[in-house]
Amino acid sequence: MAVYTEVSDEALKAFLALYDLGEVVSFKGIAEGVENSNFLLRTTKGQFILTLYEKRVDAADLPFFVGLMEHLSRRGVTCPQPVRNRAGTALGTLAGRPAAIVTFLDGLWIRRPNVQHCGEVGEAMARMHLAGADFSVRRANALSLDGWPPLFHEAEERADSVASHLRDEGAAELAYLEARWPAGLPGGVIHADLFNDNVFFLGEKLSGLIDFYFACNDAFAYDLAICLSAWCFEPDNSFNISKGRALIARYEQVRRLDAAEVAALPILARGAALRFMLTRLVDWLNVPPGAKVAPKNPLEYRDKLRFHQRVRSAADYGLVR
Amino acid sequence: MAVYTEVSDEALKAFLALYDLGEVVSFKGIAEGVENSNFLLRTTKGQFILTLYEKRVDAADLPFFVGLMEHLSRRGVTCPQPVRNRAGTALGTLAGRPAAIVTFLDGLWIRRPNVQHCGEVGEAMARMHLAGADFSVRRANALSLDGWPPLFHEAEERADSVASHLRDEGAAELAYLEARWPAGLPGGVIHADLFNDNVFFLGEKLSGLIDFYFACNDAFAYDLAICLSAWCFEPDNSFNISKGRALIARYEQVRRLDAAEVAALPILARGAALRFMLTRLVDWLNVPPGAKVAPKNPLEYRDKLRFHQRVRSAADYGLVR
Repeated sequence: MAVYTEVSDEALKAFLALYDLGEVVSFKGIAEGVENSNFLLRTTKGQFILTLYEKRVDAADLPFFVGLMEHLSRRGVTCPQPVRNRAGTALGTLAGRPAAIVTFLDGLWIRRPNVQHCGEVGEAMARMHLAGADFSVRRANALSLDGWPPLFHEAEERADSVASHLRDEGAAELAYLEARWPAGLPGGVIHADLFNDNVFFLGEKLSGLIDFYFACNDAFAYDLAICLSAWCFEPDNSFNISKGRALIARYEQVRRLDAAEVAALPILARGAALRFMLTRLVDWLNVPPGAKVAPKNPLEYRDKLRFHQRVRSAADYGLVR
Repeated sequence: MAVYTEVSDEALKAFLALYDLGEVVSFKGIAEGVENSNFLLRTTKGQFILTLYEKRVDAADLPFFVGLMEHLSRRGVTCPQPVRNRAGTALGTLAGRPAAIVTFLDGLWIRRPNVQHCGEVGEAMARMHLAGADFSVRRANALSLDGWPPLFHEAEERADSVASHLRDEGAAELAYLEARWPAGLPGGVIHADLFNDNVFFLGEKLSGLIDFYFACNDAFAYDLAICLSAWCFEPDNSFNISKGRALIARYEQVRRLDAAEVAALPILARGAALRFMLTRLVDWLNVPPGAKVAPKNPLEYRDKLRFHQRVRSAADYGLVR
């Protein structure tokens, strides 16, 4: 649920006057997204999303995010396209926050994805990886290996209040990954948060990708590893290998994984699971009073991590060679 | 912020299959409204609002609300129009809750209304009062005189924790109103909750009324009294008589108040202020842990009540005779 900032009539009017978008006919807060305030904006020229970037997003990263969406949509990836104002800039200020208007994307996010949806995501992600190749702005992944120890230290004291032995389990996994995390894998721009609420479908056809606010430069296969956890488990946290097979196979129809990526997939999946376990754990332990956001359960990702710890090779995810 | 209920892909599909609305192209929760869950629904046939009625709305009242919107829109009042399904009914069930689809209304609600906006509201309310005259379903006002003592008793123990002497102030006002509450005033269907977030504008022109879920049969002038408090005070809780004059004058251009209504206006305004003070007080004292709704401040309405207590006649609201 996300409207953290109220926009006054005058401020909205003054902001929109900078754009060539006609007259506003509707403006409604959207109860989706957890980092920023999002509004559905209809004008006489069409339908748009207006986003106010709240304090969890570093303003210094905004040119990367906005530039990336522009770059990808120019290369045929269906994603929100930033709208430039009359001065030619896509980033402005509204209600004291950085703000941008992007085009509205048709489609619904799928609450319970099936095998076909997983395949669509694999293909779209591979196309996005290729389309990002010549994007010149760079952004390090703040939530990769170096980012995990600070998260762990923030949560470790109270981790066992969430589940017994969670602290030990996290510490052991962190040590394991620090000793073995792969380097030198093929990489480029990754989405890094391609969960089901960030992918739109019309029927079983993927219609667009949204929410590029964790995008960064990292190993392509790490993006795939995130999706294995995000898309291919059932509600009881059992892995569905048919979904994994569809995700990987459709990915490889566009971009084939090399031998190093295949070998690294299980450890990348462990890292991805630890990353989401840790960020969820920190959020879980730090719900502010009166919070309007229900925190996600970190134990879902502990259970996924346990699965990945038992995986012997990428074949267990459905990769066929 | 209001999405209390998640709707699964299958449930939405099955629900929409009952309607002749084409294919769904977008479905987003809306962060507005506090009683129900609202979703913006776009299909190949247009744009709609889908509402799930949560437990604070009595299901027995829904035929009144839905029938009223249908009645009013047929008589030219711009309000959401319930969409009937192929079986001819406008009320269904989705995700275990009563649900309805209504047409989407263009317009924005005004955060800081000016005199012109107040005049528009007066005129639209009078037109609504006339348009409701031949609506045959009836619903008593559950939040009029008889409804206030239970609210007061629910809050009185802890009232002084919100502001000193609030309990005594409430008790005295309740006794005053019980001794003097007018009967026999001209009446019919009133909106009973016509606050600024329930009125849409395009520029300074009113474009529609929404949220009829407190509508009921009561004195017309009571509806006007609610609007005096809701529209004509400044952020510092001072009464703006120019706004009051515009509200009343434009109302009277459509429906002239009779002598009894004019005489009763100050006491009706006191009652309306007490009603919102009490409901806000109860909500304020009963915020559930993890609530996604920020309660409104009851003291805003205590201050408005104090103003109405000092009013000598309707002339103090800007009524000209």
